[in-house]
Amino acid sequence: LKILTQNEVKIVSVCGARDITSEIFERAEKLGNLLAKEGYVVACGGLSGTMEAVAKGALSAGGTTVGILPTYSKESANPYITIAIPTGLGESRNIILVSMADVVVSISGGAGTLSEIALAWKLGKPVVSLSTSGGWSAKLAGTRIDSTRAATIYSASTCEEVIDFVNSQLK
Amino acid sequence: LKILTQNEVKIVSVCGARDITSEIFERAEKLGNLLAKEGYVVACGGLSGTMEAVAKGALSAGGTTVGILPTYSKESANPYITIAIPTGLGESRNIILVSMADVVVSISGGAGTLSEIALAWKLGKPVVSLSTSGGWSAKLAGTRIDSTRAATIYSASTCEEVIDFVNSQLK
Amino acid sequence: LKILTQNEVKIVSVCGARDITSEIFERAEKLGNLLAKEGYVVACGGLSGTMEAVAKGALSAGGTTVGILPTYSKESANPYITIAIPTGLGESRNIILVSMADVVVSISGGAGTLSEIALAWKLGKPVVSLSTSGGWSAKLAGTRIDSTRAATIYSASTCEEVIDFVNSQLK
Amino acid sequence: LKILTQNEVKIVSVCGARDITSEIFERAEKLGNLLAKEGYVVACGGLSGTMEAVAKGALSAGGTTVGILPTYSKESANPYITIAIPTGLGESRNIILVSMADVVVSISGGAGTLSEIALAWKLGKPVVSLSTSGGWSAKLAGTRIDSTRAATIYSASTCEEVIDFVNSQLK
Repeated sequence: LKILTQNEVKIVSVCGARDITSEIFERAEKLGNLLAKEGYVVACGGLSGTMEAVAKGALSAGGTTVGILPTYSKESANPYITIAIPTGLGESRNIILVSMADVVVSISGGAGTLSEIALAWKLGKPVVSLSTSGGWSAKLAGTRIDSTRAATIYSASTCEEVIDFVNSQLK
Repeated sequence: LKILTQNEVKIVSVCGARDITSEIFERAEKLGNLLAKEGYVVACGGLSGTMEAVAKGALSAGGTTVGILPTYSKESANPYITIAIPTGLGESRNIILVSMADVVVSISGGAGTLSEIALAWKLGKPVVSLSTSGGWSAKLAGTRIDSTRAATIYSASTCEEVIDFVNSQLK
Repeated sequence: LKILTQNEVKIVSVCGARDITSEIFERAEKLGNLLAKEGYVVACGGLSGTMEAVAKGALSAGGTTVGILPTYSKESANPYITIAIPTGLGESRNIILVSMADVVVSISGGAGTLSEIALAWKLGKPVVSLSTSGGWSAKLAGTRIDSTRAATIYSASTCEEVIDFVNSQLK
Repeated sequence: LKILTQNEVKIVSVCGARDITSEIFERAEKLGNLLAKEGYVVACGGLSGTMEAVAKGALSAGGTTVGILPTYSKESANPYITIAIPTGLGESRNIILVSMADVVVSISGGAGTLSEIALAWKLGKPVVSLSTSGGWSAKLAGTRIDSTRAATIYSASTCEEVIDFVNSQLK
């Protein structure tokens, strides 16, 4: 009997804003799809916008999606979340999304995404941002948040490059 | 294309102590096994004792197990956790274990388990305790924590009765 | 210049329900008053009921009161809180109320208070309950939550006995 | 009898790094001193570096200092904290430091400070950064984090300008 362990299930958390363009929605959906095809569990904040797009893409590839929700309501999850985790922690739920990740991916994004990138950096997580998606992901791609780490936030210009980076870290 | 949603994946969180007898370990393992066979995701605190037993049983039935960990270390999870969620929240992680649950099951248990039962009650979750397992589960089985809810903590004397109760709530 | 340090400011956290009788309100108010007269910072959940009573009593004695609030709204604090700490953590804010305490006092109380007593026990805090106030405080007074600690929850039948216990721990 | 309420006690939370130069330490100390002289409660992360400097300055002016600590240990607080609040929440304690603030001040800073600025922005808090202190405070001074707010992060080049801004918000 082969025993699966947590070492065999890798989690990729995707951060991004609620208010996004349809173009970003499509790219996030594609990204979720590709991540699920690689066998990763895809985690997100569980609500709309980027969170919904990435979960939709992952689910359509048969993937498992985890939504870390700010309220106590499972019903607040978008319809593509398979494992809804209501936390009641408000904005503090962002930290769990990051701390549970093996790799963090950022797409576009405002203040919420910025806090997640910063926390991911602080917790030592590999971070890759879609440099062509605007927002803080574009601003921080290829840079270092501070001098405590030698790495930079990896700059990926396409979804495929995001996948390559994630695979380089986890496979 | 049939779309799975969070409504189709139900989470049963199991609370119990770290320091348990081999008899309780065996019963918790059996419980995890039965829950997974029913198709539930089995969540626990991710560490040893009851947490390990229930995850071991669930995994051996091919189930998905989620471990809500108190530290930032995935490595602290027991080897039967498929989705390890390090939170860094210390004892506050207990609340997430409860808030993510569709039903909460308690086995034996000391102060930690007591806090989880109390919080589950406060959040309006159905709670069932294994009345024959000692600790706070035995003390509170069949009682009401306070007058805010009409229900009692359901008292189950066997693992099979726990499953019957969970199914009555979720199927 | 004498430098005050955190070793000189002691915090007593008071746990209790929102829905209480006027008799319990008066006793909680008296307790807050006595604690402040002894020089303790009085912390509570910041809302109504027991939380308001104890803060009201402490403030009338010129004390400092801290309210650990579940939402992000300072305005949700009762009018007797001098330092309002909105956390946005929902029920998880209970743990902070307990973890910041040098001594935890419980009055009456339902599920929320029970979770606080259990967590205080788990974190190794001295706990004293007003045995004559009903609820979980009455049920648990003089008992041990589990076998991990040698002490019991100290049973005090009057506010003065609560103060004696607190002083025995902190002075 | 005049009743003090939470509306009369204003909290200024100061964010900044642990590893700082002696020049930044001196400026943070001066800032804490000026804030306390204005009657504000000064909150910080409770540890060393900027956190210690600002608390030291505030305490020397007779102020009240609150330290929001990441662990459960009161002993981890620097010696200038009057109200030590151990949370056990790890990095999530940053959000409480921000959510309790009436105004957030940032000095220098790396990833941790960046996450605090971003969260303060997200929670709608007024933010002022010492533009001449380097790090993320310098980078973000005078800018907007995203388009959800009309204001910018106020850029102050001296401690006195920080005070002027805080007073403009709270007096």
